Amino acid sequence: EEKELRQRFMAPPVSGLRELRRRRRELRSRMELLIMETQAEMCRALADLDPGASFAVDSWERKEGGGGISCVLQDGEVFEKAGVNVSVVSGLLSEEAARQMRSRGKSLKAKDGKLPFCAMGVSSVIHPKNPHVPTMHFNYRYFEIEEADGTKQWWFGGGTDLTPTYLNEEDAVHFHKTLKEACDKHDLKLYPKYKKWCDDYFYIKHRGERRGIGGIFFDDVDSPSKEEVFQFVKSCAKAVVPCYIPIVKKHCHDSFTPEEKLWQQLRRGRYVEFNLVYDRGTKFGLLTPGSRIESILMSLPLTARWEYMHNPPESSKEAEILEVLRNPKDWVH
Amino acid sequence: EEKELRQRFMAPPVSGLRELRRRRRELRSRMELLIMETQAEMCRALADLDPGASFAVDSWERKEGGGGISCVLQDGEVFEKAGVNVSVVSGLLSEEAARQMRSRGKSLKAKDGKLPFCAMGVSSVIHPKNPHVPTMHFNYRYFEIEEADGTKQWWFGGGTDLTPTYLNEEDAVHFHKTLKEACDKHDLKLYPKYKKWCDDYFYIKHRGERRGIGGIFFDDVDSPSKEEVFQFVKSCAKAVVPCYIPIVKKHCHDSFTPEEKLWQQLRRGRYVEFNLVYDRGTKFGLLTPGSRIESILMSLPLTARWEYMHNPPESSKEAEILEVLRNPKDWVH
Repeated sequence: EEKELRQRFMAPPVSGLRELRRRRRELRSRMELLIMETQAEMCRALADLDPGASFAVDSWERKEGGGGISCVLQDGEVFEKAGVNVSVVSGLLSEEAARQMRSRGKSLKAKDGKLPFCAMGVSSVIHPKNPHVPTMHFNYRYFEIEEADGTKQWWFGGGTDLTPTYLNEEDAVHFHKTLKEACDKHDLKLYPKYKKWCDDYFYIKHRGERRGIGGIFFDDVDSPSKEEVFQFVKSCAKAVVPCYIPIVKKHCHDSFTPEEKLWQQLRRGRYVEFNLVYDRGTKFGLLTPGSRIESILMSLPLTARWEYMHNPPESSKEAEILEVLRNPKDWVH
Repeated sequence: EEKELRQRFMAPPVSGLRELRRRRRELRSRMELLIMETQAEMCRALADLDPGASFAVDSWERKEGGGGISCVLQDGEVFEKAGVNVSVVSGLLSEEAARQMRSRGKSLKAKDGKLPFCAMGVSSVIHPKNPHVPTMHFNYRYFEIEEADGTKQWWFGGGTDLTPTYLNEEDAVHFHKTLKEACDKHDLKLYPKYKKWCDDYFYIKHRGERRGIGGIFFDDVDSPSKEEVFQFVKSCAKAVVPCYIPIVKKHCHDSFTPEEKLWQQLRRGRYVEFNLVYDRGTKFGLLTPGSRIESILMSLPLTARWEYMHNPPESSKEAEILEVLRNPKDWVH
């Protein structure tokens, strides 16, 4: 068992391997195994590209219930900061917190104002050093809430999106096409719907720009059935490595100028603005008692920059990416 | 008149010098002159210390009414980024926006859901290069809102606070003492009350730390009388230069190590966290249509850093300042 654990995962699962085996037919267990596997696949793929660096693996417990495993690689040759987190938490939610958790704001009937819940997910942000390698983010999550009468509400959320410093059309097409293929296996309507949701969600309103060139994003999905949504989420999770790793391999040895590095740092500043001002997950995490701040904020880049009134010259490569961030494109037809 | 303008201010006042003269007895005019003078005094004092650099002066108009003057010095010898903004805006507020503007959430009776308002202030953040020179922030502001029945509500807000990278007790005492003297001229209760308000306001809840070693902060002050509050605000505004400039002079040529620079960058990251997650002024600005984003976000440092799980060793100089940020001290007895 020890050996299997070491081979399959970065650390022992929060719920314990034996417990997960015992209730192997339950969706909660299958989802926990999926997020653990996704974490391990991603960490291995990243470590292979950055042999000098290694992941710090921290298992942590939440005193209110559950815990997580944070894997962070910092200041490597290829990656400035790469974090892949798993969390599996449970306990009691206030009605207010439950409402905030559910993006569509459905009402939930609580007993004595408290709702038993379970939330689990894998979440990752990869900030490479080379400005020609884009930043990538993904997150897949599952929630269960039990109402006063014993009925269980459940839903999935997630997404994968890319934030390049400079536009490379070939990479953008590869990224979106890989996501589209994962979606299309389940329903042809999913990719266009979740692609648009992604463009709408990662919007830095005060800048009039998206954070990146998008990907897919969805939240609060509870149909057609638990099994079908899980299978869709699984396809998305399995697409994370083939989406991104080929792009890193292709560009991680590209040469770059100090000006390109500077533009990357300014774009990192915008990434910080989105995450701290708008991101629902980050805001929810910062407000939740007992959440692990270091894991939530591992999404922030190692370094970022803000210049007053920085405006790239017209028809520069910097203006080219800005144009796409202001007016999202269709990358796959 | 041209000559007087050049000598006294960084740019022509938003309301025009002639108009300000015509209604010279009105508090709005006197406050606008005060914030213009404060801007000019601060910019001159900073420019004197950084002779190679110069302030970019941008006058801007807000299409909904009013405008402002932003003065920013970037990438100087002494200052990494120093911004001193004036804004004088007016127009119509929604009831919702008016409620948010007023921290105590007083109800305001609107005509057709809209409230005529006028808001003006001077706001500044100074980020020096040398980690032994602290970051400083100040802001003094005045609001007027006219209710449906014609009654005018008015209030003042403001504060001055210091964010050192390393603790220097002598500087902390000088800073707080200068503020206390400004307050004590008006009422001995003010300094202790506003010192505590400052410690409470600049709290980064998710870190359990204050942003800096405090100073004074107040909001929504509308007593004992308009004239008396104005005189108090004037004393505070006049204290800004003597509070801070001697500290810059004392340390701007101190030598520092790469480790000290790194710690400064990590503290800059916390500064960004406070400003984007908690600061009411920033949040209000980002949500207000027609506000000038570049002026609001000039408060962000030129560069910042986030390391996963950075914990300074016990009894280091880094741990010393953290202790004070976690447990605010009384600097003046």
